[in-house]
Amino acid sequence: MDRIKELQAVYRDTLLDDVMPFWGRHSHDRVHGGYFTCLLRDGQVFDTDKFVWLQGRQAWTYAMLYQRVAPREEWLEGAKLGVDFLKKYGRDRDGNFYFSLTREGAPLVQAYNVFSDCFAAMAFSQYGLAAGDEESLDLAKRTFSNILIRQKNPKGVYNKAFPGTRPLKGFSLPMILSNLCLELEPLLSPDLVAETLAHCEHEVMEVFLDKKELLVYENLHTDGSKSDSFEGRLINPGHGIEAMWFMMDLAARRGDRTLIKRAVDVTIRLIEYGWDDEFEGIFYFKDVKGYPPQQLEWDQKLWWVHLETLVALAKGYQLTGDHRCAEWFLRVHNYSWEHFADPSHGEWFGYLDRRGNPLLMLKGGKWKGCFHVPRAMYQVWKTLEKSGEG
Amino acid sequence: MDRIKELQAVYRDTLLDDVMPFWGRHSHDRVHGGYFTCLLRDGQVFDTDKFVWLQGRQAWTYAMLYQRVAPREEWLEGAKLGVDFLKKYGRDRDGNFYFSLTREGAPLVQAYNVFSDCFAAMAFSQYGLAAGDEESLDLAKRTFSNILIRQKNPKGVYNKAFPGTRPLKGFSLPMILSNLCLELEPLLSPDLVAETLAHCEHEVMEVFLDKKELLVYENLHTDGSKSDSFEGRLINPGHGIEAMWFMMDLAARRGDRTLIKRAVDVTIRLIEYGWDDEFEGIFYFKDVKGYPPQQLEWDQKLWWVHLETLVALAKGYQLTGDHRCAEWFLRVHNYSWEHFADPSHGEWFGYLDRRGNPLLMLKGGKWKGCFHVPRAMYQVWKTLEKSGEG
Repeated sequence: MDRIKELQAVYRDTLLDDVMPFWGRHSHDRVHGGYFTCLLRDGQVFDTDKFVWLQGRQAWTYAMLYQRVAPREEWLEGAKLGVDFLKKYGRDRDGNFYFSLTREGAPLVQAYNVFSDCFAAMAFSQYGLAAGDEESLDLAKRTFSNILIRQKNPKGVYNKAFPGTRPLKGFSLPMILSNLCLELEPLLSPDLVAETLAHCEHEVMEVFLDKKELLVYENLHTDGSKSDSFEGRLINPGHGIEAMWFMMDLAARRGDRTLIKRAVDVTIRLIEYGWDDEFEGIFYFKDVKGYPPQQLEWDQKLWWVHLETLVALAKGYQLTGDHRCAEWFLRVHNYSWEHFADPSHGEWFGYLDRRGNPLLMLKGGKWKGCFHVPRAMYQVWKTLEKSGEG
Repeated sequence: MDRIKELQAVYRDTLLDDVMPFWGRHSHDRVHGGYFTCLLRDGQVFDTDKFVWLQGRQAWTYAMLYQRVAPREEWLEGAKLGVDFLKKYGRDRDGNFYFSLTREGAPLVQAYNVFSDCFAAMAFSQYGLAAGDEESLDLAKRTFSNILIRQKNPKGVYNKAFPGTRPLKGFSLPMILSNLCLELEPLLSPDLVAETLAHCEHEVMEVFLDKKELLVYENLHTDGSKSDSFEGRLINPGHGIEAMWFMMDLAARRGDRTLIKRAVDVTIRLIEYGWDDEFEGIFYFKDVKGYPPQQLEWDQKLWWVHLETLVALAKGYQLTGDHRCAEWFLRVHNYSWEHFADPSHGEWFGYLDRRGNPLLMLKGGKWKGCFHVPRAMYQVWKTLEKSGEG
């Protein structure tokens, strides 16, 4: 029990005294609005482009903490900085969110990627609820409807797959929708929430999860069958593990012990499957047949993979008491704090080579922003708090 | 002199007794035509998709060897296998080449990439000349015209850059066009050749090359100015070095000593700039300001980078006798043969981690086929032959 209290304090203090102050000090663009996310080890800005995924995610993080941890004015203001920027510059004429913008807000990369819309919707919804801002709530709802319309062809005209030859569907969208739908629940009709969650849960647990192997596939044929291709053989253990804690959240809402147990089993299986026995840590990608993956970064150790794993294991332990969750939690915790954390400058490194040395000396970039680290610190802290009570 | 003869034999024998037999044994699809390129360490096919870049490049390699080394029937047949496949399945309705096809030839990925057309044109031209096949020569000419038309917007509708905000142009196209134009010279009007070569040489040596730093940039604003962005800061040393031997070829044709010297100086500068002092080998990517690059594979050692370097150094030495070329040649030669070569199964590994260990246990994949290894073996062999005579 003492160990749980101790760990809880580590995650809480890192969130409140290290991670959030780091982003607050270095990432706010007081001139043009929005956030810088390309930050060197010490926080220095090295590129000023603004990536819509990360603008939405950082605004969401502030608003979420304001709602769930404490109504600190600085967090509401932090959220507003990104939300205002997204409102003003984020959308094209059809209401789709660009992928990236210049520092000043001019569109750089077109709205080829529906995940920009997902993270914008999350930001608008949390901020709208936090600030009581009707415009944001309305934008969140409209963006969510748009995502549902686009989900069959999320890349639109930028889809390079020739129609019909090998129609594939990706795991990312149903997975993210399940999380997004819970985020937007207060704004949506109960029927739409129930229907969307049922669809996502089915896709994740019945379609993309192979129930014999307990592995989650990244891509399947649209009819749900396997594809023996680079895309079809791809396993991203961290991605599957992240989905499992979304599933635990769904299952906990309705007290579904069967789904909780299944999600825990899949989490453990994916960690064991992805674990690097030689150098520790979880691989980024594997080919399910053991062939060379297309991704040259396959053997790297990424921050978010390990953080999502810590969240899934904390939740799994709190919900089931499964000792495998506790043991793996400590192992991944030790690895992560030893290799990703940067006590001399704060925050975490994002990208390690296979041996656990930093591959890029950055704290933020095109894909790493103020999101996975604080979200996981918050989730683990709060989950251990519940475990401690039990 | 003896050392040169010895090296010459290594490159020749590897080409004729190792590399070409490896591809002949493992890559020919006798059922559907074309080539398998996804080959494990021992040559076993692990994926049957056909990537148009690599179909064109392998057909070109066979036809080139048939023309320049010896008129072996197996090489002409080898070339025909790919050329027939490309003729039958390679093009969309507008005559643009798809990026990839299934084993049977059904289109998988649309013609979003003009380099597919470049490598198809090279194949048709060499094969047409080798076999006296008018249809191929005609296709080569038509494809070349199409490339010239598409060069201002090579990604067409798949271009995700928002028009006007930060218009960039890439180094790849003028660089490849200079080589393609020499390949197709017998088929083109002398005026078109002269004009295209002059344009390419200007772009490479006056625009993308920074004459103070002697570095070649991958992307510039369309007006030729630098862009302080991830794309704009990107340096790919191997790419610049490859372009330098194309420039040496151009310069040697017209006996331009100034251009030869400049190309040698840039080659040496790029090797020194890209060299990994800790683990040897040439990095794949660097950010010119020393910031973290976007590419997670930045520190890897790629086969083609080292082979193109060997070609450039051999040519530089043969054309100028510059001792820096000889010294670096031996250093890169030793590194490459120690780390990329695979004496137990033949051919070369493609991808090493920073420390020089194979990252993927493959001999071919989506980007590595029967091209860089045999082309470089041929080029170094023949160049050393000339050096030996001098």
